[in-house]
Amino acid sequence: MINRKFNPAQFLVLIFITFIVIGTFLLKLPISTTEPVTILDAMFTATSALTVTGLIVVDTGTAFTLFGHIIILLLIHLGGLGIMTFAVFIFLMAGRKIGFKEHVLITQSLNQNSIGGVIILAKKILLFSLSVETVVFILLVIRWVPLLGWEEGLFASLFHAISAFNNAGFSIWSDSLSGFVGDPVVNLIITSTFILGGIGFTVIFDIWKKKKFKKFSLHTKLMVVGTVVINSMAMILVFLLEFSNPGTLDNLSLVDKIQAAFFQAVTPRTAGFNTIGTGSLNDSTLFFTILLMFIGAGSASTGGGIKLTTFLALMLSVTAFLTRRSEISVFRKTITDAAVVRSLAIAVIGFSWVVMDIFILDITEDASFITIVFETVSAFSTVGLSMGLTGDLTAIGKLMIIVTMMIGKLGPLTLAFSLATQRTAHVRYASEDILTG
Amino acid sequence: MINRKFNPAQFLVLIFITFIVIGTFLLKLPISTTEPVTILDAMFTATSALTVTGLIVVDTGTAFTLFGHIIILLLIHLGGLGIMTFAVFIFLMAGRKIGFKEHVLITQSLNQNSIGGVIILAKKILLFSLSVETVVFILLVIRWVPLLGWEEGLFASLFHAISAFNNAGFSIWSDSLSGFVGDPVVNLIITSTFILGGIGFTVIFDIWKKKKFKKFSLHTKLMVVGTVVINSMAMILVFLLEFSNPGTLDNLSLVDKIQAAFFQAVTPRTAGFNTIGTGSLNDSTLFFTILLMFIGAGSASTGGGIKLTTFLALMLSVTAFLTRRSEISVFRKTITDAAVVRSLAIAVIGFSWVVMDIFILDITEDASFITIVFETVSAFSTVGLSMGLTGDLTAIGKLMIIVTMMIGKLGPLTLAFSLATQRTAHVRYASEDILTG
Ligand SMILES: [K+]
Ligand SMILES: [K+]
Repeated sequence: MINRKFNPAQFLVLIFITFIVIGTFLLKLPISTTEPVTILDAMFTATSALTVTGLIVVDTGTAFTLFGHIIILLLIHLGGLGIMTFAVFIFLMAGRKIGFKEHVLITQSLNQNSIGGVIILAKKILLFSLSVETVVFILLVIRWVPLLGWEEGLFASLFHAISAFNNAGFSIWSDSLSGFVGDPVVNLIITSTFILGGIGFTVIFDIWKKKKFKKFSLHTKLMVVGTVVINSMAMILVFLLEFSNPGTLDNLSLVDKIQAAFFQAVTPRTAGFNTIGTGSLNDSTLFFTILLMFIGAGSASTGGGIKLTTFLALMLSVTAFLTRRSEISVFRKTITDAAVVRSLAIAVIGFSWVVMDIFILDITEDASFITIVFETVSAFSTVGLSMGLTGDLTAIGKLMIIVTMMIGKLGPLTLAFSLATQRTAHVRYASEDILTG
Repeated sequence: MINRKFNPAQFLVLIFITFIVIGTFLLKLPISTTEPVTILDAMFTATSALTVTGLIVVDTGTAFTLFGHIIILLLIHLGGLGIMTFAVFIFLMAGRKIGFKEHVLITQSLNQNSIGGVIILAKKILLFSLSVETVVFILLVIRWVPLLGWEEGLFASLFHAISAFNNAGFSIWSDSLSGFVGDPVVNLIITSTFILGGIGFTVIFDIWKKKKFKKFSLHTKLMVVGTVVINSMAMILVFLLEFSNPGTLDNLSLVDKIQAAFFQAVTPRTAGFNTIGTGSLNDSTLFFTILLMFIGAGSASTGGGIKLTTFLALMLSVTAFLTRRSEISVFRKTITDAAVVRSLAIAVIGFSWVVMDIFILDITEDASFITIVFETVSAFSTVGLSMGLTGDLTAIGKLMIIVTMMIGKLGPLTLAFSLATQRTAHVRYASEDILTG
């Protein structure tokens, strides 16, 4: 099934590059656009769609024709579902090589242990995803067709159903979902959809199968509790910090304030839609949003970032260090050392790339520091929120963001695979301690 | 010698708080100041001096009398030498508890293994420090008395000799050493002094004793090579990034440009003097300076930050991860897992504090994001460089920076001690992997 010369991670990178080349070509065709776009902008759009980021250099709604929109939707689907499926396979294959315990974890949570099973699994993921998208599409149609008429209503529903489930953040409206800041139906449907897409297929499958919290795997427990806690905290913070900001919540009614705060709290991980203007947020909210974006969604999901479990493993190990415990336990289970090391590596390496990126953009772009940090993390975590820099990027800036979206989407996954199948060194040197701190 | 109820780390914190209280009281006395200062400003100055940071809320030269200046110098001495001595002791004591190998490392590099030896060691550190300060004082006198006259020349030489060796960053001049941006003698003396103070006593002792690079401990090798590489890279970057910046290097001759770039490259880790205006630097240079500040100086030195070896251990482990090696080796030695875990913990915990601090200052202070990030990291790493925010801080802002200077100075050290003497958990839960990345 996969060429023996490549490992699954390398295969994934190759596929991605191939799709970006094809996507760029298709979006550059005159049939795709209402006015000519540069090859760099076509490439940026193709990469943004395939990595389900949602950062845009041309207005999605007006710059592309129906054909262009269909290409974008296809790329989103390939990227979102493709990555989710691939992630599950990679963890499955990695599990095979790293011994019985982790293999059991993955096969248990997926209930698969043969190639036949893998194909059944792929079908399950596809079936599940298309079912959710269909239901969401129908719900949105019920809401939007009466409002927008048949043509725009149907297309908007299709586009946003797919964009939401895949955490793509693309919208056909230039102000994203700002027109529906106080619409409880749209708020509820869209947020539920991208949270479902972002929590990870293994989590949904685990919940579906086991029903009771006590029986869930450690991964599922962490994801469920972590998502609820972090989203609630974020909502309260956004509500308080933006309450009297005239650019965002001040002019809204209390109910709308709560809705807008909720949406703004959950979209950074890593949906990328917005109902209030990102550029108008306070610096404190922006910084907090940057942190949420970096954390991101769940493993083996349609979302990006270093992943919630990676962040939680880090925080739990820090807590263990500070309370001087040598074991990192939660929910009466100990997190394996391998998972902690993997988390640290993913966080540190991801952070290092973001730092280098910010440094380069600081040189090439004429924008404030927070704007550049925000844009970089948004690209790395494939979020798609922007304070407005994307459209003004220099050519070097666009290339950096393209590469960052790629690294952000494939990096943590391939890294996790790479670490899970780590070889040992050929030469063993004597070990020696150094002073630190 | 040390009360049995406290461990050395807790003892250190207690001593520090005591000295800050005494320092605040003394600096609040009318005899210390030329005009009344608030108790918060006295406390800020005392903390900044004791933590050898150098951030100032009142102008050191004009706001304090000679008595005030002497108090500040005493606090700097207590903080700088005290911490260095204490750090050596803590590593020595930690070494005893963590087994033969690390004990050998520390006692080898210090040549001590008894309480008698410890006292001899303390005397050695004191003798070494005072000798360096005396030599630097004499060299500065030779330069400055002809320029500034006897009174200012002598006092400036004494003040800056002590401030430089202890990496305190305090200056009696409101523009720090900007008046000597092109003075090769001052540049050379001051930078050599703070680099010597910042590289760490164990390194100097190791070099002194073994003479040849091949025989140095792994810690010494990393410090020597790391310092040369990072300083050279930083100098080239500052030179290139600031070359045509009219606010910094543009108006200087080529020789002065090189001198100023060198000074600006080495001062962030963590001397804190400046010869060009920090606020005039490009965003790219500022961001790079923030990174250098966070990295900081050497362990068991007068400098701050997470420490160069901590950073190098992190980078080496990242490199090992990316090249899929399970051992982290350099200079034909393997860095112990304990050192890597310690490094990761120090970096992650330090970073977490800085993040929380930035978030709070974003709410309380009316300043740009990069100004706040710069100020916070400068305080955490006890650098003392400022883009100008310190003087304008709100009361909450001042308190946050005071706490941050304390945590920055004591945190990594107590953390390293804490981790080195870690207990194991009482309850062992079954371990379970989670998906990350
Ligand atoms: K997105
Ligand atoms: K300093």
